[in-house]
Amino acid sequence: MAPLSKTFHEAETLYRRIQSDLIARYESIDGGRFDMDAWDRPGGGGGLTRVLSDGAVFEKAAVNVSAVQGPAPKKLTEHLGVEASWFGATGVSLILHPRNPYIPTMHANLRYFETDTGTAWCGGGADLTPYYYFDQDAFHFHRTLSEACQRHEAGDYQRWKTTCDEYFWLPHRGESRGIGGIFFDHETDVNSMLALQSDLGSAIADAYLPIVDRHKESPYGEAQERWQHQRRGRYVEFNLIHDRGTKFGLQTDGRTESILVSLPPRVRFDYNAVPSPGSPEQELIDVLTSPPRIWVT
Amino acid sequence: MAPLSKTFHEAETLYRRIQSDLIARYESIDGGRFDMDAWDRPGGGGGLTRVLSDGAVFEKAAVNVSAVQGPAPKKLTEHLGVEASWFGATGVSLILHPRNPYIPTMHANLRYFETDTGTAWCGGGADLTPYYYFDQDAFHFHRTLSEACQRHEAGDYQRWKTTCDEYFWLPHRGESRGIGGIFFDHETDVNSMLALQSDLGSAIADAYLPIVDRHKESPYGEAQERWQHQRRGRYVEFNLIHDRGTKFGLQTDGRTESILVSLPPRVRFDYNAVPSPGSPEQELIDVLTSPPRIWVT
Repeated sequence: MAPLSKTFHEAETLYRRIQSDLIARYESIDGGRFDMDAWDRPGGGGGLTRVLSDGAVFEKAAVNVSAVQGPAPKKLTEHLGVEASWFGATGVSLILHPRNPYIPTMHANLRYFETDTGTAWCGGGADLTPYYYFDQDAFHFHRTLSEACQRHEAGDYQRWKTTCDEYFWLPHRGESRGIGGIFFDHETDVNSMLALQSDLGSAIADAYLPIVDRHKESPYGEAQERWQHQRRGRYVEFNLIHDRGTKFGLQTDGRTESILVSLPPRVRFDYNAVPSPGSPEQELIDVLTSPPRIWVT
Repeated sequence: MAPLSKTFHEAETLYRRIQSDLIARYESIDGGRFDMDAWDRPGGGGGLTRVLSDGAVFEKAAVNVSAVQGPAPKKLTEHLGVEASWFGATGVSLILHPRNPYIPTMHANLRYFETDTGTAWCGGGADLTPYYYFDQDAFHFHRTLSEACQRHEAGDYQRWKTTCDEYFWLPHRGESRGIGGIFFDHETDVNSMLALQSDLGSAIADAYLPIVDRHKESPYGEAQERWQHQRRGRYVEFNLIHDRGTKFGLQTDGRTESILVSLPPRVRFDYNAVPSPGSPEQELIDVLTSPPRIWVT
């Protein structure tokens, strides 16, 4: 059994701390509690999946940490284009599906990967999927992430914002999943990246929780909820058809329930549901089908 | 523009007739009406998507006919392993998502494909996805399909039943989507196959509607509906991750709304939802995770 590096253990410790900190902040705004579900990976390692179901603010929320290691499967080395016989991967990922349709869904993850042949990199990102569009939310979200990136040598908000826009494009719908954020991968300046990820650990909450606060008491009815459920359908389409992490996790016998915990709780697939012209629903579609906006210059 | 064969037009006419006949029978049992949505394919051909939403018996039902033709895209010829510069494809497909959790979901399609280089074949199938398991339903469904197959030279129920079991296996869940049926593809005895498909056009309704009748008044509550919605989640997983027709349609710029009309109307994705031991819900899981049963000998 190849030893994991000191950096691997630092990264895992960081992600576990971020998991605890974020859960404390989410529980404080929701009032509910996250369940604990610890699991082992047959090949080596394991994780802690923490889920809040049917909360007052979050209909479904999950913050997961995993730290796995083992002989590098052929699928993995081919996929990554590296030569290695052993790998270690650790990360924290989160998904927040709020109940109120005026609050956007948020997703983020922070990851570290290494092999026994000296490859080591960080990946991750954070992005926002609104059901109704508000300028103020989009600016605040992007500005907060941008500021965290600027505080570190390895941070590159503009490039990561573009990568995010490209990644979250749903080709068969001709629209974006949401209004983006940042997305980075294979970042090899690991020391600077871990410091940045530590900072992002709190920025992820700072970027989102004020938006939750702003909308959590907004009144809504069945029509807004139906729209939210239909849009969640697009989220499902993205995750099951395109999301690399989901695909890769399922193909490499990852823990299915922890991978698919990202799927929204209640979803609708209605045939040809099209909002009426000039409606707030259509305004969102206009944003998602237009070229990505510049939120922070 | 390469001409389509006489057989192509016969197949298309057959599928349009089957569409009308099935819709008449479904409307008669539901009381609701199927909307009509005719569409053109930019590259050539088009289709008629007919959807019933929020019916008394069917929460969502769709019967679609398409007949498309054009220069054979590289993706298509590679996928099929044929050399051709022109193709024609026509088919009828249907999905029935009932409201009552005791009624299974049913899916079927019948297809014909040809190229300008003389390739011609039929494909199709029919399968059942119950939320609760009843011996009587499974036997009736398989027996009716088997009898239709037996009436024709090209019919091969046993082989097609096995292919169906293999096809509807969800590897990341270690379970079947449902209790199978028949699935066939690349059947080149086209004359016999079209006669068989004509017969299957009514067998599809004969195999299913008595099951609908049997359960449509069965009382159910929130718990059964929640289970149904969770199981519909598995249907979504199958269709978006594995279903070849869905994948291929989306990759080749098919009409998204007509392809994804197969998705169930209301769906739940709950974390780690596991039925209690000995419950009727667990009985279904036992059937779906065991080796496929022999329904007709």
